[in-house]
Amino acid sequence: MNGTYKALWLNVTGDLVVIDQTVLPHVESTKILKTCEEATLAIADMTVRGAGVIGSVAAFGVYLAVRQTKVLNGEFEAKVQALKDARPTAVNLQWAVDLMLDRLRGASGDLVTKAKEEAIAINNDEANKSLEIGRLGADLIEVISKREKRTVNILTHCNAGWLAVIDMGTALAPIYEAKRRGIDLHVWVDETRPRNQGANLTAWELGKDGVDHTIIADNTGGHLMQHGQVDIIFVGADRVSRQGDVANKIGTYLKALAAHANNVPFYVAFPTSTFDFNVVDGVKDIPIETRSEDEVRYMIGLHENGNIEKVLVTPKESRALNYGFDVTPNHYITGLITERGIVGAELSKIEEVFKDLL
Amino acid sequence: MNGTYKALWLNVTGDLVVIDQTVLPHVESTKILKTCEEATLAIADMTVRGAGVIGSVAAFGVYLAVRQTKVLNGEFEAKVQALKDARPTAVNLQWAVDLMLDRLRGASGDLVTKAKEEAIAINNDEANKSLEIGRLGADLIEVISKREKRTVNILTHCNAGWLAVIDMGTALAPIYEAKRRGIDLHVWVDETRPRNQGANLTAWELGKDGVDHTIIADNTGGHLMQHGQVDIIFVGADRVSRQGDVANKIGTYLKALAAHANNVPFYVAFPTSTFDFNVVDGVKDIPIETRSEDEVRYMIGLHENGNIEKVLVTPKESRALNYGFDVTPNHYITGLITERGIVGAELSKIEEVFKDLL
Repeated sequence: MNGTYKALWLNVTGDLVVIDQTVLPHVESTKILKTCEEATLAIADMTVRGAGVIGSVAAFGVYLAVRQTKVLNGEFEAKVQALKDARPTAVNLQWAVDLMLDRLRGASGDLVTKAKEEAIAINNDEANKSLEIGRLGADLIEVISKREKRTVNILTHCNAGWLAVIDMGTALAPIYEAKRRGIDLHVWVDETRPRNQGANLTAWELGKDGVDHTIIADNTGGHLMQHGQVDIIFVGADRVSRQGDVANKIGTYLKALAAHANNVPFYVAFPTSTFDFNVVDGVKDIPIETRSEDEVRYMIGLHENGNIEKVLVTPKESRALNYGFDVTPNHYITGLITERGIVGAELSKIEEVFKDLL
Repeated sequence: MNGTYKALWLNVTGDLVVIDQTVLPHVESTKILKTCEEATLAIADMTVRGAGVIGSVAAFGVYLAVRQTKVLNGEFEAKVQALKDARPTAVNLQWAVDLMLDRLRGASGDLVTKAKEEAIAINNDEANKSLEIGRLGADLIEVISKREKRTVNILTHCNAGWLAVIDMGTALAPIYEAKRRGIDLHVWVDETRPRNQGANLTAWELGKDGVDHTIIADNTGGHLMQHGQVDIIFVGADRVSRQGDVANKIGTYLKALAAHANNVPFYVAFPTSTFDFNVVDGVKDIPIETRSEDEVRYMIGLHENGNIEKVLVTPKESRALNYGFDVTPNHYITGLITERGIVGAELSKIEEVFKDLL
């Protein structure tokens, strides 16, 4: 890992190339984004997803907008506003756009080059955070490995690997780093309905890296924890409140409840850019995205004819409701793994470690 | 409801006809079971499923065995043993077979006729229990309706309607009875991966009966409960221990944890035949069935070409693990709804109400 694979890059003509995550694991293909509008659509339709990569694409999206308008005019502002609104829950999107705008507004010289450099810089910063998160999380796995002297069983929900966050991910970064250290480990991969990011993306990433893993229905984690088959849980985050409440993929909260009931350590891994210090009570105040009911009603997969096909898995007449995220209250969380260290999910501890950002 | 629809019946030649639950909701078709072996296979391959209906098919399976062998010889015993072993978790299977054997062993006269009559009698008894469970559960819904003066939101997991238990089901019986009473209600239907009994069967049943419902990913229930969108939960059971621990479809435990954390009443509805008084600690001692990993790896649904098609939803190389059930410890359960009344999920209370059966 660690730079071996990339979720996005710039090509020789300065366009943004992204891995199309909607057809993984069955087809490995890329999309070329030439405009801010294409970047916005790629975020909205989940060609790219995951808090970190949404932030990365957003930073490059601002660069693409500058490339279109050359100046920071009203047209530019409109493009960037639409980009910022592409998805509501992941705060990295707004963070990356605002950071780009901050850096561009005072800039002199060639704005297009400047925008490109700043987007690359933001991405490099985030990649370095991912590496540090990996080191801190791997230390936790190593302690269990040394204590138990057997395979360490790790559970994760959704995808927070390098497809989601430059460069090794957040929740998966400790796993990749522990593997690099030679620790014997196995990963339970939550399928993560309705979009199956676990079964489609996490399993694919882990398989590519030779990490031993088993896919389970989202319903299974509680039973595994009850029977001592999970040593530690790592999940990512889309937005974390000032008191440490965590918005992450729908279903994360249920796993946190089961971890709490069965004394399984539950860690959330994310870079500082995922904090929203303006929100204190995450359950009350983090906006939760509602997505199309057809993401629940239809399933997409590989048919034996070799094509990717879509099948209806509910009665034609039945309606569905599709919340993209839920919020795990801070008291179910063992610790927050950030590039600044592992911090308790409590207002006072967070305010102490991140006081320069408040 | 209540006799309008049937999951199984005898045809004019005395064969058992069952609704094929593996192709619902897309195709409504039946299978004819002429032998004990066919009944065994129908249980094992989930043509029929649900604790009650497994018991019903098992009772008729014993009748079909008698029809084949005419006498209770070694060949008969072997057929019946295979039937009993078709699935490990639902205790109604063993209960129904043992009850049939008890009644046949002392019988005189035409054994085939006797076996048919006893199987029908067992089914009628179970149907009456379903009606009483419906009345008791509907009373709970009615109290909420009168208190809140708005739509009552009910959550259920898997399928415990008339496809699962003769004649209105267990978990769905209160819903059908409340609807009959004119109570304004809405049902959250857990998809119930990996076999999708919620999305496929419960949604179809409720739709046929005109009950307002919404399908949700299994991941969603915690978020709904956290936000006051669930008033009460009803689930069925496959085996209930002497102290009230409940084996039910995998994922039930996670919903019970969320209900407990959010003060949502969590009821388990089942006839007395679902008790296993020989087991006290359900988490430790109820056997949990492991099914094929392909139930997780593939999804079956209706293709736009009109055919039922199967698609792979994981990487080809990734393995999966598929536990069919989990056990919810008794302290997360508000009450057990049986045909004898609503009983606390505690050893002393259960031993008091069912002392004649211990």
